[in-house]
Amino acid sequence: MPSTTEAEARTASAPAGAHDGPVTLINKFEVDPARDEAFRELWERTSRYFRERPGFVRLRLHRAVSPDASYRWVNVAQWESLECFQAAHDTDEFRRLVTLHAWREFPSSPALYEVVLEHAAADAA
Amino acid sequence: MPSTTEAEARTASAPAGAHDGPVTLINKFEVDPARDEAFRELWERTSRYFRERPGFVRLRLHRAVSPDASYRWVNVAQWESLECFQAAHDTDEFRRLVTLHAWREFPSSPALYEVVLEHAAADAA
Repeated sequence: MPSTTEAEARTASAPAGAHDGPVTLINKFEVDPARDEAFRELWERTSRYFRERPGFVRLRLHRAVSPDASYRWVNVAQWESLECFQAAHDTDEFRRLVTLHAWREFPSSPALYEVVLEHAAADAA
Repeated sequence: MPSTTEAEARTASAPAGAHDGPVTLINKFEVDPARDEAFRELWERTSRYFRERPGFVRLRLHRAVSPDASYRWVNVAQWESLECFQAAHDTDEFRRLVTLHAWREFPSSPALYEVVLEHAAADAA
């Protein structure tokens, strides 16, 4: 799926069937470096809503240090389950937040993942 | 930077100057679902090398549950520093691994990031 500025495509699509276990949203944003602060302010305002929903586990917001990164900002957010993720995206408040006009400046490309494997350094395990 | 199958572009580009603190590689792969097992086997073989390098912290390999995800597999790998990341990518063994012919089937799009902010759910903090 290409990046989009359409509100209805701001939510990662879900699998047709059920999904067991945690899910991770990886949402990539195209941002002009000169607009970093505007993006961050808007993103913080929106993410506050998600952080208070049942089933939210953790998020990390990343900014590129590679100068040629296609996506300058990437949010990686873990949720307890697909059901919790979907419930948080099926509210009037969510629709209000993603339809804020300011978002049109920052195309996004969201998708849902599962963690297939994880490795930690021996001394960090 | 678009996805590539070129060996020399398999490494995320680094900033021109120094960078303080940890870095996170986010590397996205285009994979035909029918080739998941072949990709995973190849990726595991390559990642073993990185997991044993100084400064490697942790990685999570993600597979899409969204049916329309542009990138079916995404590796998110934390390193202690830019210097450690670069040292691990400046060896003959690294070049041997990324020039394996089998990689040509799986275009990738790597970029380096820093974590700008992190939030955990109140009961997970």
